[in-house]
Amino acid sequence: MSFAAQILTLYPEMFPGPLGVSLAGRALAEGRWSCAPIQLRDFATDKHRTVDDTPAGGGAGMVLRADIIARAVDHALEQRPDLPVIAMTPRGAPISQSRIRALVDGPGATILCGRFEGFDERIFDARPIEQVSMGDIILSGGEMGALMLLDACVRLLPGVMGAASSGVEESFETGLLEYPHYTRPVEWEGRTIPQVLRSGDHAKIAAWRKQQAEIDTRSRRPDLWERHIGVRVQSPSGAQRDLKD
Amino acid sequence: MSFAAQILTLYPEMFPGPLGVSLAGRALAEGRWSCAPIQLRDFATDKHRTVDDTPAGGGAGMVLRADIIARAVDHALEQRPDLPVIAMTPRGAPISQSRIRALVDGPGATILCGRFEGFDERIFDARPIEQVSMGDIILSGGEMGALMLLDACVRLLPGVMGAASSGVEESFETGLLEYPHYTRPVEWEGRTIPQVLRSGDHAKIAAWRKQQAEIDTRSRRPDLWERHIGVRVQSPSGAQRDLKD
Repeated sequence: MSFAAQILTLYPEMFPGPLGVSLAGRALAEGRWSCAPIQLRDFATDKHRTVDDTPAGGGAGMVLRADIIARAVDHALEQRPDLPVIAMTPRGAPISQSRIRALVDGPGATILCGRFEGFDERIFDARPIEQVSMGDIILSGGEMGALMLLDACVRLLPGVMGAASSGVEESFETGLLEYPHYTRPVEWEGRTIPQVLRSGDHAKIAAWRKQQAEIDTRSRRPDLWERHIGVRVQSPSGAQRDLKD
Repeated sequence: MSFAAQILTLYPEMFPGPLGVSLAGRALAEGRWSCAPIQLRDFATDKHRTVDDTPAGGGAGMVLRADIIARAVDHALEQRPDLPVIAMTPRGAPISQSRIRALVDGPGATILCGRFEGFDERIFDARPIEQVSMGDIILSGGEMGALMLLDACVRLLPGVMGAASSGVEESFETGLLEYPHYTRPVEWEGRTIPQVLRSGDHAKIAAWRKQQAEIDTRSRRPDLWERHIGVRVQSPSGAQRDLKD
């Protein structure tokens, strides 16, 4: 089963773009995923192909019209009723690695990219659309977020990553940042690889890595650390649920 | 003064990519910013142009070598000693809109894109590199994060956004999510634009938008809300500092 991406956008020429090279590009060529950009302007109803209008109540910028966006979403849902529709918007829920995992376990996603000041809010009442934020920064549109979301999904598809074991010990998968990495040369500019990593003692190495991950998470990401600690003091069943939030 | 982007990457063909069209593309053509991808393999020292090696202590994947990355970073610093070097890594500090604003106020950025399992940690002790994370998800490399970072910067450059006033009331700029938007048609599928937005009463509209932003932030993003509230109960000078965190 191939992972299907439909992208509703004013800039279909941005896709697959950078996802057409490297790992994701090879996976696309091999049919492990598909990428179907859909031009929002195709659903406009005037000859100027207008998709936006001025904000009700005044203010700068333009707002994407609910009626036009609904026509585009309806078309996407006709094409692939099985795909969740995900709008890229800073008003959405922050994306998480567990949401990425869940998407990868499903048939794909229809991604709705905002532009200008955003969407007419009524679209979210009138259609089943999940609002997702790719981070607490403002982009010129949803397209870069869509590329990032798809990159995170595609690398997890079966057969895409070189080593099947890769991807389970990484940052966020355990609720912690990943431990620091080292590789040859053993000595470089007077700095050596930590002795324990050269010991060959796998239990010691695993313990050291766990400790480093905890130290770094605590100092760099107190928000993740508090959640991690909160999970550990709860019951095992509650812990599982919280980790997936 | 133009904003300069240097990107250290294994995939220079990804740049400017989607940033070559739309607002960012026009700004690039107008010389408001520049985009110089640099191939990391050019700094390898063997004929296979090797940049990575197996992780010390074992484990899946490959690690980017500190000696090769240092040569590339040194080259970038020679070219543009004035640019901060920013590594895209999930172990970094989460990107924020205030960091984007600060970058835009400066001369640009050299962005170092990770691949594989990441960088040999010693590079961060040996060179002045800021570690930044674009979100709590795992990407196949730093390139999509770099595109997102640059998109967020470029839209704020003078002359890039259509309306000069745009960008000050948006999500995160005030510490809150942005209020919901509406536009014509006034009635659509039985749903009308809220009456207050059609009242013409600017004070009432501003009050309603503020209230909506607070309601949505509290329900959708309790993390932002708590920080917002925390700021408000502190002294004015402390508040300023916290808002910029």
